[in-house]
Amino acid sequence: MDLRGQVEEANTLTVERMMQADPLWVDMGLASEKLKGMKGRTLLHAGPPIAWERMSGPLRGAVMGACIYEGWASTPEEAERLAASGDVTFEPCHHHGCVGPMAGVVSPRMPVYEVFDEKSGARAFSNLNEGLGKVLRYGAYGDDVQKRLRWLGTTFYEAMKAALRELRKERPGLSFKAIISQALTMGDDCHNRYVAATSLFIREMVPYMFAAGAGGKDVSEVYSFMNGNNFTTLNLGMATAKAMALAGHGVKHSTIVTTMARNGTETGIRVSGLGDRWFTAPAPTVKGMWFPGFSEKDANPDIGDSAITETAGFGGFAMAAAPAIISWVGGSASVAMEITRKMYEITYARHRFFTIPALDFQGTPTGVDIRKVVKTGVTPHINTGVAHRQAGIGQIGAGLVVFPMEMFKLALKGYAEAYGL
Amino acid sequence: MDLRGQVEEANTLTVERMMQADPLWVDMGLASEKLKGMKGRTLLHAGPPIAWERMSGPLRGAVMGACIYEGWASTPEEAERLAASGDVTFEPCHHHGCVGPMAGVVSPRMPVYEVFDEKSGARAFSNLNEGLGKVLRYGAYGDDVQKRLRWLGTTFYEAMKAALRELRKERPGLSFKAIISQALTMGDDCHNRYVAATSLFIREMVPYMFAAGAGGKDVSEVYSFMNGNNFTTLNLGMATAKAMALAGHGVKHSTIVTTMARNGTETGIRVSGLGDRWFTAPAPTVKGMWFPGFSEKDANPDIGDSAITETAGFGGFAMAAAPAIISWVGGSASVAMEITRKMYEITYARHRFFTIPALDFQGTPTGVDIRKVVKTGVTPHINTGVAHRQAGIGQIGAGLVVFPMEMFKLALKGYAEAYGL
Repeated sequence: MDLRGQVEEANTLTVERMMQADPLWVDMGLASEKLKGMKGRTLLHAGPPIAWERMSGPLRGAVMGACIYEGWASTPEEAERLAASGDVTFEPCHHHGCVGPMAGVVSPRMPVYEVFDEKSGARAFSNLNEGLGKVLRYGAYGDDVQKRLRWLGTTFYEAMKAALRELRKERPGLSFKAIISQALTMGDDCHNRYVAATSLFIREMVPYMFAAGAGGKDVSEVYSFMNGNNFTTLNLGMATAKAMALAGHGVKHSTIVTTMARNGTETGIRVSGLGDRWFTAPAPTVKGMWFPGFSEKDANPDIGDSAITETAGFGGFAMAAAPAIISWVGGSASVAMEITRKMYEITYARHRFFTIPALDFQGTPTGVDIRKVVKTGVTPHINTGVAHRQAGIGQIGAGLVVFPMEMFKLALKGYAEAYGL
Repeated sequence: MDLRGQVEEANTLTVERMMQADPLWVDMGLASEKLKGMKGRTLLHAGPPIAWERMSGPLRGAVMGACIYEGWASTPEEAERLAASGDVTFEPCHHHGCVGPMAGVVSPRMPVYEVFDEKSGARAFSNLNEGLGKVLRYGAYGDDVQKRLRWLGTTFYEAMKAALRELRKERPGLSFKAIISQALTMGDDCHNRYVAATSLFIREMVPYMFAAGAGGKDVSEVYSFMNGNNFTTLNLGMATAKAMALAGHGVKHSTIVTTMARNGTETGIRVSGLGDRWFTAPAPTVKGMWFPGFSEKDANPDIGDSAITETAGFGGFAMAAAPAIISWVGGSASVAMEITRKMYEITYARHRFFTIPALDFQGTPTGVDIRKVVKTGVTPHINTGVAHRQAGIGQIGAGLVVFPMEMFKLALKGYAEAYGL
């Protein structure tokens, strides 16, 4: 077979594995227990590798907050000194099969969701969602942030873990893929809109939550938090997407992207047929809708592992399924439709299980092909939240972002080198 | 002011009242307690008035089932004889401020939802939803139907009533209008697709259900039924729509339709400015998708009060918001969009609170104007379930139906007579 044939075969295998994966939510645990290789004073972060010196404000803020949460520092100043001292190891979430939205900072004592795809053996993790506004993942670290993190790490974590234990008395785990699939027919893109997914998740979990908690005060508190936060399931959606991407990773000759992630300074991709090598470019700015009192000049460049949703064939790529998202990220319904249409030009497949009712249940654009990106000049379109560029402030808006071409060209060059073309 | 000016003013007032109404779910009770004027052996039914002799199969089946449920008969044969004897009074639900989907049969011991709009004083009712398949409202009456009706009339009714009592400790009632408004941004049309609305309703009610039931077996059973039936909230949606329509009814000179309903033999409308007079035509057939083993020749003509949803500006009129509904009623996504576009031609307003994200949050077509119907030759398009034409069988499919022009012409003639034109 010629190389072209080998690439087509490899890409087909990659996207089939990604689409056929059905990761089940099977467990929760502390990051230090669950993420192998996360030792001592290690903090994980979103995007490609980065040192403290080059970190943007919100990532620094989240790092400082995590140092305080772990008890490694007791003030922001102490935390900042510690982080800059070299005594904290920083590693990408992606190096541990993990993903975190926005800053994506995961510290040893933070609980993580674990999902597992039996077919491929892919296992992935994500942290818990704190809700919107002044939260760690947007770079805030104050007392209210700490208080919420502690509550998430105890009350919420224990209630959800107990509920999952009840669920697993009846079945091996919860298929969040099934929820994504349904939510895409209910106006969610499952990146920045999780209203339906969270509703469906609640419907599934309520009996187990109440069975586990027997209607006690904690369960009511946890229910009320979940019900008040439509992003409750973002992290489970991301872990599910990460497991799908992992299922498709490592196929020789494949030109399909299996990681797209941003650390607030750089955006990076990895490619199925090119191992764990990152190809990076400066993180772009977001065309956003701003919360009152903020503007573009306050915005940090693009940040977060949440582009794993687009990597797996939903999120921004499925915007045509979620016209209501324009009220959150700006634009018009026709823009949402146009973005999905464009993404078909740079992807390898139409998803078998994720469909868009408004396009007569056509599958979502799935599997970014670096060849097609470079050939068409079209890069992935993502929708995302936006953090203030300074540490300690939090979310200031949401919007649309277009990935830089540079890293796709680098990846194609890397591919040519790796395969001796 | 000339007549034309008077009509415009009246129509504006009608649609404003309909749109501004915010009916709250405030109570539940047995039909005999709640529906004034429902005395003795009375059964309510969907659509315009009809005698036993002219009733279609599914309406007869539901009537027979209700006679058994009430203990007026112990076998279908006995029930049929009783119904034909003249000893049972038949009245339209609409004559009691009530609405029922499909056959719409409401008997004295059946519980009803009560909604109340404080602004207009409109009060409306609907019965409880039994789920899909072999159910009374589709003309089935067997033992399984009876068993479910008894369970709904006791366990379900008591649990929901208790939950509502808990809710009313915190606020005056539940605004199902708010749920409809949100569900339209989540792929529901709120006539034949209630997936999002039922999910949102569950999210709202869970804390109250569990507070009222303290996590007991009954609550679990009721939760499981609700969660397993995406049509759980259809009836609350219909009661809400009926209250909205009532709020706009009785405006002098108004040419806006405030009732559209079908009894399986005839379709009927009533007009805001023409009092309680019905204008009827033979019920049309439904262009449907059929359950395995059934076809068009098994289908009963169009039946049910559920067209109250279109009367109030959602349901089929909002199909552009619900492209996923094509998997239920047939057609393509472009048909869904086209139907909504057509309905703008015959309606008086765009809804202030019900919007369509895919049309950049344009308001739904609201307030059918009999003048526009006759002028354009376009009649209301409805989506609906389909019952087998024989009593005792149940649902055989779902589809789209176009209302007959005849009754709109009769109404316009009636209008000319009433106002001496």
